[in-house]
Amino acid sequence: MQSFATLVTAFEERFSATLPFPAAPANLYDPCRYLLAIGGKRVRPVVCLMAAELFGEINDDAWHAAAAVELFHNFTLIHDDIMDKAPLRRGQATVHQKYGLTAGILSGDVMCIFAYEALAKATRALQPMMQVFNRTAIEVCEGQQLDMDFESRDNVTIEEYIRMITLKTSVLLACSLKMGALTNGALGDNANKLYEFGKNMGIAFQLQDDYLDAFGESDKLGKQNGGDILANKKTYLLITALAQADANQRAAINELLAGNAPDKVQRTLELFSATGADKACRAAVARYSDLAFAGLEDVAIPTARKEPLRQLAAMLLERDK
Amino acid sequence: MQSFATLVTAFEERFSATLPFPAAPANLYDPCRYLLAIGGKRVRPVVCLMAAELFGEINDDAWHAAAAVELFHNFTLIHDDIMDKAPLRRGQATVHQKYGLTAGILSGDVMCIFAYEALAKATRALQPMMQVFNRTAIEVCEGQQLDMDFESRDNVTIEEYIRMITLKTSVLLACSLKMGALTNGALGDNANKLYEFGKNMGIAFQLQDDYLDAFGESDKLGKQNGGDILANKKTYLLITALAQADANQRAAINELLAGNAPDKVQRTLELFSATGADKACRAAVARYSDLAFAGLEDVAIPTARKEPLRQLAAMLLERDK
Repeated sequence: MQSFATLVTAFEERFSATLPFPAAPANLYDPCRYLLAIGGKRVRPVVCLMAAELFGEINDDAWHAAAAVELFHNFTLIHDDIMDKAPLRRGQATVHQKYGLTAGILSGDVMCIFAYEALAKATRALQPMMQVFNRTAIEVCEGQQLDMDFESRDNVTIEEYIRMITLKTSVLLACSLKMGALTNGALGDNANKLYEFGKNMGIAFQLQDDYLDAFGESDKLGKQNGGDILANKKTYLLITALAQADANQRAAINELLAGNAPDKVQRTLELFSATGADKACRAAVARYSDLAFAGLEDVAIPTARKEPLRQLAAMLLERDK
Repeated sequence: MQSFATLVTAFEERFSATLPFPAAPANLYDPCRYLLAIGGKRVRPVVCLMAAELFGEINDDAWHAAAAVELFHNFTLIHDDIMDKAPLRRGQATVHQKYGLTAGILSGDVMCIFAYEALAKATRALQPMMQVFNRTAIEVCEGQQLDMDFESRDNVTIEEYIRMITLKTSVLLACSLKMGALTNGALGDNANKLYEFGKNMGIAFQLQDDYLDAFGESDKLGKQNGGDILANKKTYLLITALAQADANQRAAINELLAGNAPDKVQRTLELFSATGADKACRAAVARYSDLAFAGLEDVAIPTARKEPLRQLAAMLLERDK
């Protein structure tokens, strides 16, 4: 059983040595190489490998599936950054910012296709892997659409928000785990339990991200606190604060949302605390984490084999400590 | 053996009755439904079905493959129209024109994924179909990139142009034929010969499109002659005219390219004729048509079965008569 760090290194080496992009047309493939070179945590491919290792050795099909989810994830980053008009990604210029809109669209498209090309190299369980991958890819698009739809809505509920983050970010983590399991012939029940583990993990992780963006230690995160607040982003905190606020608090929040007061972040944080939204968010993180860990316990393999996944989940969910 | 018209009707009925898009999120799926509803000739799915029928009955896998190529083709139309800043498609507003840029990007993305979802329903020959489909999808992106690269280049050769149109348009026709053949267990040699038939057909068809845009009877085509000329598009005609021009003719062409004279179309057409580019284009159409038909003869099945494909090719290549 290999640790997260070991598998990240192994994946990075193999992935960068086998990148599928030809030299030409350079205007198509340079943007692909650029984005993959600026890094990322590689969580999705590594949990795919970890899930494979739950049931045996990591075989070629697992490496193909891991490459597929990483390529797919990076494709969505390119197109999401266009839609979000984001200038920076991992501290570097986004693809469309550096290479232009058409390069962003087309290099994203081809990266998506290369994800399928990587997956199609799998010789075992191709059809079940394709099924979960397609369903997931569709859901990721739907999640991105919901996220954009929410921008112009004032009545987003917590249930809708959880559904959006589930589709936009959690299902790909879940899919990565399930595909890894399938590469070693895991039975449907075990594969589906790993999927649920990944889904709940992903939700917990995203909710914690909401929390840390507001209340985290900015120097540890490498970014300024309150980015979501300044962008009026409908996070778990804001939706909950509005739902739990009394009339005065709600008026204060809406006034802050309507303007750009210099102390907007500080005053919003105070209202998040006063309404109990901060506690509710931490409680939700704990709830989805508990669900995730309980689901992992249910997977019918020896406990010791689950240790790397459990450690990774604990690491991801306690990164502010 | 069914005719093109019969199969178009059959495909339209089945395709529209089994469209995979859910109702919500409407902002994601309405643009998909919109584009598919404004039609198209459905040449690609129908040649896929015809190729299947060369080797047996049209089975479910053939219908899945046909749906996949039509969905993929429409995905490329959505994104190409964004990149080309095209306001109209088949006489209607393009997707990004009607629904906005982000809807264009995201609905294109999800349509591409639904193409893979349709293909993944195939139970026989999934892996060989995925291989040719992936290779083709990558080439289509490369062709679109080359097309855009050519806009800012003055030294595009005929060989480069043929390669660009091969990638951008011909290989998807070729892939449709090969996948159809694979659904009925055609042997590699026959499937590859059909691929070559489709590739040469597609090149002939595109070159004829270049010719008709300049010299066709505008009322038959439903569009004005000379659109490519007004857009300074580097077509077979323009590249050949520049290559075959004497010094005076070349200066005249370059002067026309640099300006927007009211008689630009007429004078350019005269130069296409004077340099022999018109004849060269017709000769190239004939050459690739001959290659295509000869390749079809070589497919090892009874001649009578090939009649619908031969008739379709003849119809597509003689549509100005």
